[in-house]
Amino acid sequence: MEKQYAIGIDMGGTNTVVAAVDRRGMIAGRKSIKTGCAGSDINQFIEILSKTIQEVITDASASGEVVGIGIGAPCANFTTGVIEAATDLPWPSPIPLKEMIEKATGLKTAVTNDANAAAAGEMSYGAAKGIDNFIMITLGTGVGSGIVCNGVLLTGKQGFAGELGHCSVRRDSKRECRCGRIGCVQTYCSASGVTRTALELMADKLWPSELRNIAPADLTSKMIYDAALKGDRIAVETMRFTGEILGECVADFASFTDPEAIILFGGVANAGELITIPMKDAMEKNILHLYADKIKILTSTLPQEEAAILGAAALAWSL
Amino acid sequence: MEKQYAIGIDMGGTNTVVAAVDRRGMIAGRKSIKTGCAGSDINQFIEILSKTIQEVITDASASGEVVGIGIGAPCANFTTGVIEAATDLPWPSPIPLKEMIEKATGLKTAVTNDANAAAAGEMSYGAAKGIDNFIMITLGTGVGSGIVCNGVLLTGKQGFAGELGHCSVRRDSKRECRCGRIGCVQTYCSASGVTRTALELMADKLWPSELRNIAPADLTSKMIYDAALKGDRIAVETMRFTGEILGECVADFASFTDPEAIILFGGVANAGELITIPMKDAMEKNILHLYADKIKILTSTLPQEEAAILGAAALAWSL
Repeated sequence: MEKQYAIGIDMGGTNTVVAAVDRRGMIAGRKSIKTGCAGSDINQFIEILSKTIQEVITDASASGEVVGIGIGAPCANFTTGVIEAATDLPWPSPIPLKEMIEKATGLKTAVTNDANAAAAGEMSYGAAKGIDNFIMITLGTGVGSGIVCNGVLLTGKQGFAGELGHCSVRRDSKRECRCGRIGCVQTYCSASGVTRTALELMADKLWPSELRNIAPADLTSKMIYDAALKGDRIAVETMRFTGEILGECVADFASFTDPEAIILFGGVANAGELITIPMKDAMEKNILHLYADKIKILTSTLPQEEAAILGAAALAWSL
Repeated sequence: MEKQYAIGIDMGGTNTVVAAVDRRGMIAGRKSIKTGCAGSDINQFIEILSKTIQEVITDASASGEVVGIGIGAPCANFTTGVIEAATDLPWPSPIPLKEMIEKATGLKTAVTNDANAAAAGEMSYGAAKGIDNFIMITLGTGVGSGIVCNGVLLTGKQGFAGELGHCSVRRDSKRECRCGRIGCVQTYCSASGVTRTALELMADKLWPSELRNIAPADLTSKMIYDAALKGDRIAVETMRFTGEILGECVADFASFTDPEAIILFGGVANAGELITIPMKDAMEKNILHLYADKIKILTSTLPQEEAAILGAAALAWSL
């Protein structure tokens, strides 16, 4: 039998990564484009994306052996194939993504929520292997989540289960969320949430910091992480506070599904113990006794962006 | 074939109700005892409970035809049969309830969380019939919940999924919860939470109220509901605030499981629209756009305490 490939696509707020994946989860080739490369013109983006898919197929020498395409994207609904009301993408919603990609490529396509795709990938190949009850939290441009109970990914009535980034963590906050609400987890724990905390600390504290030399528009969570590693006090406190907020949230999330593990994923999670140590402290301090000392905090063991690609590709095998 | 019965028991913080239930969910006989009737002596309580079970069996003329016992109780774990760390019961935890009841009665016994039992009952016979994604919230001595996704009741790693009453709704609150934490949903929306809100309003406001003539130890949520029906301003505002808090919480709960309905159950839910109208308002005001106008707020259609009994009895049929 010829070797077969699925195309896995991870569409994030910043980058869209396309890869050819074989049945064992090995990635044969990959390319990345900017999600905003065509501005708000979705038709032009689909054109660029189709070309990229073709290049990946050619590079992997996978032509004629591609079974289909699986896509993980924010607010993408597996049931309808539509991206509905995504606040982290440059195009106006709704976007009939499945239909558009099928028309452009001639390949069968399935779409799902990016965080759900990451959870599926982590369950098959990563830190969640053998864990039947976990919550995957993706800390990237937005904050997403995939909730697995008894080995099954929760989907919900409409297909929108697991939008934990939009739970309220500070009801009296002034932080505006792109969803139109105030004080969502995402306004604190996404990449831009981290930079907002650094700005707030620079406003409140007199501490000197190298971050004060960077224009807010240029400041990234990676810069803050790097500064924290060098002991910059604003940066260290920013990471600690991010972990603390996350720990407070997760203490409540535990009351839903009694998980065995929380798995962190995405750019902000790369800060590792700078986040997970204060997170664990805050979680145990705020958690109901039933769950105390029972929940592991893990970070993804898959290379960055690979979990979502593997999870998305896995969709394609069942088309 | 002889007619068979299961014994369903609903053990709440205040009352424990025992009933004989046939396969069609008809209740043939029932008795209620006070959960605190033996103080903190669990052995004496089990003795009284066994006697009550025997009386119910005799009254229903069900002797010899009882297949087993199902019990819904706070913090009861279906997997282990043990009540672990219940803050709403008069006895020290853990309590090996399944083992104790089997020994005392000679009947096979299964236990589960009281809210999960109510959700199971509501799904089989009540308001949740035909609804595959819902959250049942029990507003009684405590606040419990049963979460159903794709027709399956969530249990979680340890068996403790659905403790939504202990999510934090006011992190800056001074309200102490019996769980040892501050600002849990339960401190606002349980029966005693409602009376605490009334006391707080009597402290803050100058409004005259008949509730001011009742000693706090004697004040019940039922009295407040009755006063609200008569237009007592403290009472009306208490019910409105209770609904508002509940709506804020449910707006966040929606982000977990994308439910089709929230089903309210228990004493406080008897206030009906005095709670559900402000609850719906607050829910829609605080909810993520994906869920806006999608979630029904229902109140249990089963007679008070019947859902938990029916759900608990249903456990016994599969023993």
